[in-house]
This record gives sequence, C-alpha cells and structure tokens, in this order.
Amino acid sequence: MERRSFLKKAAAGVAVGTVAAPAIAQSQPSITWRMPTSWAKSLDTLFGGADYVCKRVGELTDGKFQIRAFAAGEIVPGLQVLDAVQAGTVEIGHTASYYYFGKDPAFGLGTSVSFGPNARQNHAWWHFGGGAEAMAPLYKDYGCIALLAGDTGCQMGGWYRKEIKTTADLKGLKMRIGGMAGLIVAKLGVVPQNIAAPDIYPALEKGTVDAAEWVGPYDDEKLGFAKVAKYYYYPGFWEGGSMLHTLVNEKKWNELPKAYQAALQAACGEVTTWMLAKYDAQNPGALRRLVASGTQLRPFSRQVLEAAEKAAYEVYDELGAKSAHWKRIYPDWKKFRDEQFLWFRVAEHTYDTYCFNSKVGQPAAAGKKA
Amino acid sequence: MERRSFLKKAAAGVAVGTVAAPAIAQSQPSITWRMPTSWAKSLDTLFGGADYVCKRVGELTDGKFQIRAFAAGEIVPGLQVLDAVQAGTVEIGHTASYYYFGKDPAFGLGTSVSFGPNARQNHAWWHFGGGAEAMAPLYKDYGCIALLAGDTGCQMGGWYRKEIKTTADLKGLKMRIGGMAGLIVAKLGVVPQNIAAPDIYPALEKGTVDAAEWVGPYDDEKLGFAKVAKYYYYPGFWEGGSMLHTLVNEKKWNELPKAYQAALQAACGEVTTWMLAKYDAQNPGALRRLVASGTQLRPFSRQVLEAAEKAAYEVYDELGAKSAHWKRIYPDWKKFRDEQFLWFRVAEHTYDTYCFNSKVGQPAAAGKKA
Repeated sequence: MERRSFLKKAAAGVAVGTVAAPAIAQSQPSITWRMPTSWAKSLDTLFGGADYVCKRVGELTDGKFQIRAFAAGEIVPGLQVLDAVQAGTVEIGHTASYYYFGKDPAFGLGTSVSFGPNARQNHAWWHFGGGAEAMAPLYKDYGCIALLAGDTGCQMGGWYRKEIKTTADLKGLKMRIGGMAGLIVAKLGVVPQNIAAPDIYPALEKGTVDAAEWVGPYDDEKLGFAKVAKYYYYPGFWEGGSMLHTLVNEKKWNELPKAYQAALQAACGEVTTWMLAKYDAQNPGALRRLVASGTQLRPFSRQVLEAAEKAAYEVYDELGAKSAHWKRIYPDWKKFRDEQFLWFRVAEHTYDTYCFNSKVGQPAAAGKKA
Repeated sequence: MERRSFLKKAAAGVAVGTVAAPAIAQSQPSITWRMPTSWAKSLDTLFGGADYVCKRVGELTDGKFQIRAFAAGEIVPGLQVLDAVQAGTVEIGHTASYYYFGKDPAFGLGTSVSFGPNARQNHAWWHFGGGAEAMAPLYKDYGCIALLAGDTGCQMGGWYRKEIKTTADLKGLKMRIGGMAGLIVAKLGVVPQNIAAPDIYPALEKGTVDAAEWVGPYDDEKLGFAKVAKYYYYPGFWEGGSMLHTLVNEKKWNELPKAYQAALQAACGEVTTWMLAKYDAQNPGALRRLVASGTQLRPFSRQVLEAAEKAAYEVYDELGAKSAHWKRIYPDWKKFRDEQFLWFRVAEHTYDTYCFNSKVGQPAAAGKKA
C-alpha cells in the first residue's frame, strides 16, 4: 500500500503498473527526447546529474528511449526550462523549481525556502510527507509532472567583497541570489538579482553586483568567484537542502509506455543519492583549495541569521494572500518542517555534534577550522 | 568519465553498457529470482525497501525479471543471507553487511562503524570516495557483488531497564547490539549478544538480555520494546548512518542481460533515498507516541560517549592485524571520514544547529524536548 503510494508520488499522481498484475506485453517504441537544463556543462554535478538520468534511461530500455541533455542556453535559456516544457517545445527538462517563483511563489517549496528543511528532511517531505501530492496541482497548472531528481545539500552563503558583520552591511548590497530568497533578503535591504550561472562571474567582476551566491565550494570554485570576492560566508540560510527536478510535459508523460515511465522514475530517484553524494565527496577538497588560495571563510553572525529568519516568516505569512497554491500547501509543509526539526535534534544532530567536534578519533589537524 | 566511473562503482567493478555505443538488441529473457532478507515482514522500511527493489525491477522489465523478497527465516535465517547468496542457494539477498563481521571485520565498514560517517557521508564514501571499489574484493571473496540499497539514518542507542549514567552502569550489562559494535562495547564491560529481530523482544522480556537496540522509534515501536524497558537512549553511536545492501551472486550477476543489471542498479539507487525518507518521515510521530506512553528519553552522557569512542579507535587499530581487508581499506576510509567531518561542520552543521534551536520560526511547543 505504502509502496504503491510512493510510486504514485514519484509520478506526481500518475498511476503506474505493478508486477502483481503483469503488464500486457507492450512494444518498446524508439523515442527520442530533448532535455534542456538550467546548468552550464562544466557543472558536472548539476548538468552531470541530468546527463546521468538520460544515460540510465537509455540503459534501462536497451537504448530505445533516448534522452539528450542540453546545457543552459543551448536550445532553451537556463531560466526558461519550465516554459519550454509547458509549451511542448521540448518533452522534458531538468531545473530548479524556485527559478519560477515569479510565476507562483509556491514553486519555491519545490526546491528550498529560507530556514526550511535540510536535504533529507526535504526528501522525507516530498516522498512521505505529502509534498509530491501537494505540489502536483501546481506543476499541472503548468502542464508538467515533476520528479525529484537531485539535491545540492546545504549551500554556502556566497561571495562578498566586504565583510558582512550585521544587517547594516547588507543595506543596498546588490546581490545575485537564487529563487525566492530574494524576497527575504530584500526585507533586509539587499537588492536581489536573478542571474543565470554563466553570467554571474562577469557581473561580479564588473561590479554590476557586489555579492553573489551559487551553490558551494565545488561549483563555486569552477565558476571562479574567489578571484573577484574575498569573503565566503556560511551557511546559505536560503538553501538548507535544495531539490532539483525533472519536469515532464504531462501529455508526453501520459503517452509513454509504463516501463519507460518507470525508467524515468527510477533514474531520477537514483540520481538524488548520486548528486548529493558527489557534492558531499567533492566539497571538502574544493573548500580546502579555496582557503589555501586566500578565501576568507566567515560564518554569518547570529544577528544576521535572526533578522533573516524573522523576515522569512513574515514573507511566508504574506504569500498566502498572493498564491492559492502557497495558501494550500504552506500550513502542512510548516507542520512537517517543525516535526522534522524536533526529531533531528534527538539522534542525528546529537550524533553529528558529538562526532564533528570530538578530538578522540580525529587527527591533530581536525582542531583547525576547514 | 565520472559518471561511467559511478556506474562501475554501483556494479562494484562490473562494467555496464552505455547509450553512446547502442546495445545490440538482446533478448529479454524471463528470469525468476528469490531474495531472502534479514528483516521481519512487519518492518515496512527494511523489508519494504527490499520489496520495493523487487517491484521496481519488475516494472522496468515489463515483468520479465521477477524477484521475490522473503522475510527472515522464510527460506534463509536472517543472519545467513550472505552465506545463501555465496552458496548459490539463492541468487540475491538484502541484508546489512555488518552482520557478517565475524567472517571479516571489514564487513562492518559496509554498514556503519561506531563514530563513523553519518548517512550522507557514508553514501559519499561508497559512491565517490572509493568505498564501493575498496569493498568489492571483500564481497568477491564471498562470491558476491554488493549494491548500496537503503539506509536507516542515525539510529537510537537502545532500550534499557535502568539508567545508564556512566560507563560503570554498563559493566556486566547483557545487551543485544548489532554488528561489530559488540567488539567496542565489550571493552566497556557490556556482554554483547547478536540476536535477529524477531527474537529480541522475548529475550528482553524474559531478562535473557538487560538491554537491546534495533533501529529507531518507527521500527522499535513496532517491535514493542517500550513495554519491557523504560529508558530510551540516544544517539546510537555505533550507527551514525547504517547502509543496507543488495548482495548478488557474482556468477548470476554476470549472466544477466545488461539492461537487467541496470534495472537492479537503478532500483537499488532509488531505494536508498526512499528508505531514508521513509524513516525520517515516520520517526517523529513514533517517538512522540512512545514518549506519551511513558518512555523516558535520555542522552548518553559525555563520559559514556568519550569512553566508547576511545574504545572504538583502539579496536580499529587492532583489527588491521586480524583482517587484510580491514588493513587495506581502513586508512583511506578514516581519511575520508575526517575530511567529511571537517566540511560538514561548515555549511550543514551550522545550518542545522541554527535552525533546530531557533525559536523564531518554531511553534511554542518546539521549546520542549521531543
């Protein structure tokens, strides 16, 4: 029962076949799809994740269902993947829901919102906390179904030319910041900019923006931000664990043979662990290299975090009046978040806190900050 | 390159086909396999995860590749799944590697060891930190390949009839404890017992053991431990994030069509997110019910944790003399663990610590301990 329910969730409400009632033998048609993404090709976690889904689907179907991933701008601009899938220009895309928060702020909940769940808590919400079902009608309004397909983990707080000690230092700061976090930092005086990945470095270099955030050490090192901004802040309080999604045009989805739908679901499920594991494995070395090259690592002050959190929950309370989807989804999301936070304090956080700070099993160097 | 490398890792060294070189059209033979597990059927996360893999593989192959999951004891005793797969009595099984630490302590690293990586860090090690490749020769010695297929997250520290304030309270305590953690707590005076799930409750009820641990609130509630032991300790310092595996007889694996190998790999990858999400979603409610029914929630004291960690690293240093696999794998594992701990302190742990303790976004009740 629960497993069936999960499969349904994975398909955002579209029922799939089961083994118990053996599928009628069906043709394996040759299908070729194009998958624009929001990612530069150099980002081998994000673009690499989309590519992984495509390759796996090919393997699962003996090469009959071929999907090709395209970098941002190759066939569709990076921040218009949803539009292209909705229009049917392409059948499928890989993107972050929160890029489309301007259409509806509820898209933010599909990726991450400030002071929201971390990666595991987001996955728990999506798969077993009613998240996929709650979000499905929103995606349906845009002609899509959404499959969870990747996660970045908790992100860093971005690159700044000057130190940010209190919220006073944020006033008037022009900053590239992803998704609906812009609404929140705007309350603190930041002037938020929505800029796709390839354009961030030039903007920061020219001074069009004073600060910029992307993901974390591994990606940020590739994009070169350390060359033009010295201070690297943490944590990215607007992205505790950002989910990525494969969006599929609903009509095209419904035309797929059941085994091909299952192939997409399984590959997207698999890549969620894959991407998070890849980020977690690659980030430590990247951060060490950045720090060795002069990057100054700084935690946001408690004053900044508290002001931002207060602003975030003010924004969330206001959004119900602007979006029927937000109004419908947010109360249950918030309840789930609160329960997750309480539970994680017990086993997970106690374990992490002890282990990460213990000197017993650590080498001498572990006393130093990364 | 890295994606191919990941696929290889997922197959523990067995190369798989790619779309770039389209597979020669191959038959889709009808194959029926049996999958014994180490789990009681009532455990819908662990047994449910094994069952999920079977169902998904069926869907991915239009019902041609049928695998049936069996509960512990149905066709193979719960702690002999590896033996049955090795002998070829069955083709495949779902279990925890560390049950077999008596054959070789290095099996412990496949699941979790005391004060080791948490769930995400374990997945990073397995998929991108050389873990799968390092473990493959060990599984190969037992005629198997291993696919990561599930995780419990950080477990609880178990059920006790009396309070455990210091290590003095552990002396002579007869305790059911999983895997090689027994070696470590034995150094603190505990008398460890390896007992399969269905037999734990009777042993605790009769007083054959004084204490017992299984997984966490959701499973432990099902197994009824609260009825016979009052104190529930956290965290389970021997299981920061326990990985489960699908073991496949190597000869049987090599006989599979490539698309069927891919189906198993994808389904196992998918279930890793599935199982963790299910535990994370279900544990908070279970813990609340347990506490409401009189369970006394207690953190292990710092004195207990420090003594246990010291004992753990003494054991790890000794094991190199007993196992060539341990000697070969442990140094790189330890280095990876140390780097993960350092990095997670920065973004993830700072975020979690702030969010889990903040009062700003929390309801009034959040101030109370779960």
